[in-house]
Amino acid sequence: MKTFMGKNFLLETEAAKVLFHNYADKLPIIDYHCHVSPKEIAEDKRYNNITELWLGGDHYKWRAMRCCGVPEEYITGNASDYDKFKAWCKAMPKLIGNPLYHWSHLELRRYFDCNLIINEENCDAIWETCNAKLAEPEMSVRNIIRNSNVKLVCTTDDPVDSLEWHKLLADDASFDVKVLPAFRPDKGININKSGIAEYMAKLSAAAGVEITDVDSLKKAYVQRLDLFASLGCKTADHGFDEYRTFIESNPYEVNEIFKKAIESDGKDITDEEMYKFKTEMLTFLAAEYKKRGFVMQIHFGVLRNQNTRMFKAIGPDTGFDTVGNFDMITPLSRLLDKMDSTDGLPRTILYSINPTDNAAVAALCGCFELSGDGKPKVIQGSAWWFSDNLDGMRRQMTDLANLSAFGNFLGMLTDSRSFISYTRHEYFRRILCDLIGKWVENGEYPADIETLAELVADICYNNAKNFFGFDI
Amino acid sequence: MKTFMGKNFLLETEAAKVLFHNYADKLPIIDYHCHVSPKEIAEDKRYNNITELWLGGDHYKWRAMRCCGVPEEYITGNASDYDKFKAWCKAMPKLIGNPLYHWSHLELRRYFDCNLIINEENCDAIWETCNAKLAEPEMSVRNIIRNSNVKLVCTTDDPVDSLEWHKLLADDASFDVKVLPAFRPDKGININKSGIAEYMAKLSAAAGVEITDVDSLKKAYVQRLDLFASLGCKTADHGFDEYRTFIESNPYEVNEIFKKAIESDGKDITDEEMYKFKTEMLTFLAAEYKKRGFVMQIHFGVLRNQNTRMFKAIGPDTGFDTVGNFDMITPLSRLLDKMDSTDGLPRTILYSINPTDNAAVAALCGCFELSGDGKPKVIQGSAWWFSDNLDGMRRQMTDLANLSAFGNFLGMLTDSRSFISYTRHEYFRRILCDLIGKWVENGEYPADIETLAELVADICYNNAKNFFGFDI
Amino acid sequence: MKTFMGKNFLLETEAAKVLFHNYADKLPIIDYHCHVSPKEIAEDKRYNNITELWLGGDHYKWRAMRCCGVPEEYITGNASDYDKFKAWCKAMPKLIGNPLYHWSHLELRRYFDCNLIINEENCDAIWETCNAKLAEPEMSVRNIIRNSNVKLVCTTDDPVDSLEWHKLLADDASFDVKVLPAFRPDKGININKSGIAEYMAKLSAAAGVEITDVDSLKKAYVQRLDLFASLGCKTADHGFDEYRTFIESNPYEVNEIFKKAIESDGKDITDEEMYKFKTEMLTFLAAEYKKRGFVMQIHFGVLRNQNTRMFKAIGPDTGFDTVGNFDMITPLSRLLDKMDSTDGLPRTILYSINPTDNAAVAALCGCFELSGDGKPKVIQGSAWWFSDNLDGMRRQMTDLANLSAFGNFLGMLTDSRSFISYTRHEYFRRILCDLIGKWVENGEYPADIETLAELVADICYNNAKNFFGFDI
Repeated sequence: MKTFMGKNFLLETEAAKVLFHNYADKLPIIDYHCHVSPKEIAEDKRYNNITELWLGGDHYKWRAMRCCGVPEEYITGNASDYDKFKAWCKAMPKLIGNPLYHWSHLELRRYFDCNLIINEENCDAIWETCNAKLAEPEMSVRNIIRNSNVKLVCTTDDPVDSLEWHKLLADDASFDVKVLPAFRPDKGININKSGIAEYMAKLSAAAGVEITDVDSLKKAYVQRLDLFASLGCKTADHGFDEYRTFIESNPYEVNEIFKKAIESDGKDITDEEMYKFKTEMLTFLAAEYKKRGFVMQIHFGVLRNQNTRMFKAIGPDTGFDTVGNFDMITPLSRLLDKMDSTDGLPRTILYSINPTDNAAVAALCGCFELSGDGKPKVIQGSAWWFSDNLDGMRRQMTDLANLSAFGNFLGMLTDSRSFISYTRHEYFRRILCDLIGKWVENGEYPADIETLAELVADICYNNAKNFFGFDI
Repeated sequence: MKTFMGKNFLLETEAAKVLFHNYADKLPIIDYHCHVSPKEIAEDKRYNNITELWLGGDHYKWRAMRCCGVPEEYITGNASDYDKFKAWCKAMPKLIGNPLYHWSHLELRRYFDCNLIINEENCDAIWETCNAKLAEPEMSVRNIIRNSNVKLVCTTDDPVDSLEWHKLLADDASFDVKVLPAFRPDKGININKSGIAEYMAKLSAAAGVEITDVDSLKKAYVQRLDLFASLGCKTADHGFDEYRTFIESNPYEVNEIFKKAIESDGKDITDEEMYKFKTEMLTFLAAEYKKRGFVMQIHFGVLRNQNTRMFKAIGPDTGFDTVGNFDMITPLSRLLDKMDSTDGLPRTILYSINPTDNAAVAALCGCFELSGDGKPKVIQGSAWWFSDNLDGMRRQMTDLANLSAFGNFLGMLTDSRSFISYTRHEYFRRILCDLIGKWVENGEYPADIETLAELVADICYNNAKNFFGFDI
Repeated sequence: MKTFMGKNFLLETEAAKVLFHNYADKLPIIDYHCHVSPKEIAEDKRYNNITELWLGGDHYKWRAMRCCGVPEEYITGNASDYDKFKAWCKAMPKLIGNPLYHWSHLELRRYFDCNLIINEENCDAIWETCNAKLAEPEMSVRNIIRNSNVKLVCTTDDPVDSLEWHKLLADDASFDVKVLPAFRPDKGININKSGIAEYMAKLSAAAGVEITDVDSLKKAYVQRLDLFASLGCKTADHGFDEYRTFIESNPYEVNEIFKKAIESDGKDITDEEMYKFKTEMLTFLAAEYKKRGFVMQIHFGVLRNQNTRMFKAIGPDTGFDTVGNFDMITPLSRLLDKMDSTDGLPRTILYSINPTDNAAVAALCGCFELSGDGKPKVIQGSAWWFSDNLDGMRRQMTDLANLSAFGNFLGMLTDSRSFISYTRHEYFRRILCDLIGKWVENGEYPADIETLAELVADICYNNAKNFFGFDI
């Protein structure tokens, strides 16, 4: 029986051990998609206690606690930080087989030198160990990032954002990790959501462009895109929550839809109108990304805010989103084709939330792979959100390998809101090396360590660097 | 090479062997969902031969025989019991990898002390051994149940049922296994099916309520629900065969739909009307379940009676249902949200028939997990029907673990029409212990036998007891 | 660590090794579905170089090269054969985990006695070895087929085809491998595609029937079907790319749809009209197949020609098709039921392109399994196209075994356009024996070598022979 999370955790073959310990583990990290706060990096934030760091904004953990019947008071409510942490520790043993079990224990080991098992009994010892550690200077946000061997981080930023913290960081010679903005225009795309009118006012102000119609809206976006680009932005991100139908329209129609949305604050917009507007704006933005060399990331298939009662009580991004299983491939394929036909398709990454879409997504990418420049053009992203677990990663990588060129895979990103999530790259790299190790051990790929090490280095680091064109 | 179905059948690791033999195998059984006849328990039925017991009503076996080209005469037709059994034995070797292969051999070993391999050659020996055994008193229905270490059984009962056999059993001190009714109102919900008018007349009579509109229909249901509750009922079951769209309506509309259904015996009901009626009645019933502390079980995604010719010839539940792969998550999520928003969502179990829905179902549950009382509220049920096999169980448990708190899983149910299906609990427990054993063996969970034994006991027994609130 | 592709490649257990080496590997091949040219067999074609043989028409390899950023010039363009081959070799190491990696190395080993690893470094040595070998007489098309132990090949042929090469081959006593035509009427079914008018003119001419309406269209098909049957045809093949809805109609309507299609060359046909026409013609043809004892093969779920720009540039079947994930089960079930209800359902094989449809397809077949003659009637086909890889085959076989009688499985077909793809049968047989070997090794099936060898022989050879009724 192996020790829990020992040196060779998840590494079952000799090849896997060699590949991980001699190669993968030593590579730096590019975290090209996450949700950490640039302000907290700029201010080099410190944490008062482990609850603040672990449970402050992590809706993955909140969901898990709710599944265990923990009262909301101990999740997003007014219970003390200690009591919340205790509730979390108590729930943990039930999370056997859940990525949170591994993520949490890995973080405890790597950032706090604490090998205790998380459970009610060990709660106090962990609480004290972690809090003492958090009081040390090496646990400031910048030091955590530095010590995690991170070279570059892309945050997630709204077009209306001033990017003031990115400017500060760009000018700060004392911190040599790149912190780049990423362009995430979902709020202005979701034309049928309440708040759209107010959002457009903000965008007007930010861009210094009076937005009265789709033409001026596009001008405003161009202004913001140029600002993002000037701060080193290399990527845009889209959450295609509800894009069930590809419908084209004409400029007159789109304008009318836009005006109606502003006047009714999204209320009067039908589904058909929403799809028409999205089709137009997504195509426009894609072409602008292409001009600037941005990579377009598309995350699709989520059903958001499914619990109305809790949405009213505590808002979005609190653990009430879920996995759609409707057909996204048909409309997505038409949209990509429209972009490609008009020479406006940038390099693109497709992420699906439903593991059962893996094969369809990997295959779809192949229909638009026409860079001809030695790098892929449209590629499936790593197992995302509800798929981001041990089995989900294995399945996604296996499906990608079956249907594409696995050697071009862009590897891991944290997608995280926490600064100690970089261990997810270690977790991924172990699983990657284990997968490759099994292929080698079974005679499915030659045991040529040089080629294998190159594959691993490409997938863990080089491919992302080259695909995005990061200057590091 | 392991012996076929030896002591350590399906148990690949040391941890699995310890967990199964020292813990799981000794636990009693709660069979909270099955289709056995309460009459046969009350009368302590005996069987004339193995065909009657094995092939009398088991449409899983019928399907398998048809796949092997066995003529219908030997399946549901007039061939002799011996000839039917022989046809079954002859088909068996082709069922490699099918759960029926394991189920049948397990039943033969556990109930008949017969280790023969089922095939044409051994047919006569098995026939004689089984029939001799069936002649012994220990093979009466009650003795089978007792000797299977069963503590509680929930049957499946229509609201119009008199529950006379449940009453008899409740009063019978000589049988200490609880046999509780479960409320299954599908016939009255399927407003577009022929026979609905006659069904409503029966319900009127049973409830002593003249059903003329939706209000009186609801009154009748309340009367029946109270009767079921008085006999210890703790759960209701719904087969959502065709619930593809969530559509709300108003009381006037629902009333008109109901009247039209009665007048045309379901014929004039459009799909939209069906969905409106179902939405209304399901929401009403859910709230009633919540009041009474019933667990609502939802089985969804089946396409029933797909072979019209055979439906006309031999009726429903004869092996002509299949696995839907349409989007059930979108409407189901809206329905659960409506129930939750109106404070009418009871504890719920969701079962999908399509293994590819596992992740979406496990995630969906998490959007409505708000009990706050230390137990889950909405949880994914075990691999069901066409998924109820070795791989299907592994996938369902893995997906549940990835996306929820596996320690809260409610474990196995037979869903069976046969009294010797309790070996499916053994089959499940072996697979469960094997899965946990692998996690431990690979260093993915601590090798702490006390915690592991508790997890196993919870999943095999305690969780179901607590979730349903069974008084045992 | 195993040698790459050694003797026991993919065979992990003792049982697997025995089953493969002593049984499966010795069996002849029936390739009941492929796309090779009967003309090239009749003419006993020779190849100038390995590029012509490997890269001339293989859109699987083209896709893989595009994924690696290879310029189109080196794929379908004007680069030299050597340069194209070099580009292929260079891309190969990135294809770890892809079936092309295994297929290509297997072909190199089995047909060229060349054990080199395909990469840029070995490019020249492989180029020379292969080309030298291709110059030998044993590498003529007929000799390749003979030496591959092939007994029978079914090509894929349009109803308008003259079948002249099949006639020549039937009369040629010097070649004793059967080369039968297969009836593939997709072009005449796709009523909404441009070219339909011209196609109908060709069909008129071929059949000697003036096609003016649906009745005369059916007459023309009957004429062609009789011709195909006279040349030993045993099967028809349908690609159901877009059959999303089952809609019935009346003879008048179908006639009007047909006329409109001819007049507008497909342009004015709505989706609803397309579905009505397809429903009618598919039902008609199925009944005709049944009369003649043809097996109907249905391949469904593909989205074809998704890249408009490349479709215009280089046409169909060039690597721009992909995996649909819409619901095909609902309409397909209704269509099969219509055929069954009217006594017009022939023996049928269902292939889905999306691995997530496996369970639904395997289960669906069971609803129409009513031959009663000892053979299955409707059965799931082997993992197809984008699923035709190591994992896809394992999943398809596992799902089939879980939900049907695996002993009746029809085994492998190449679906290939190349004459050296017969190694895919070896690849399949290794995976099959490995799967069965694991079941035996784990005690899930008795270690009875006689029964196992029979299962393997049935799946690799006998079942296909009997199901299609091939006279070999």
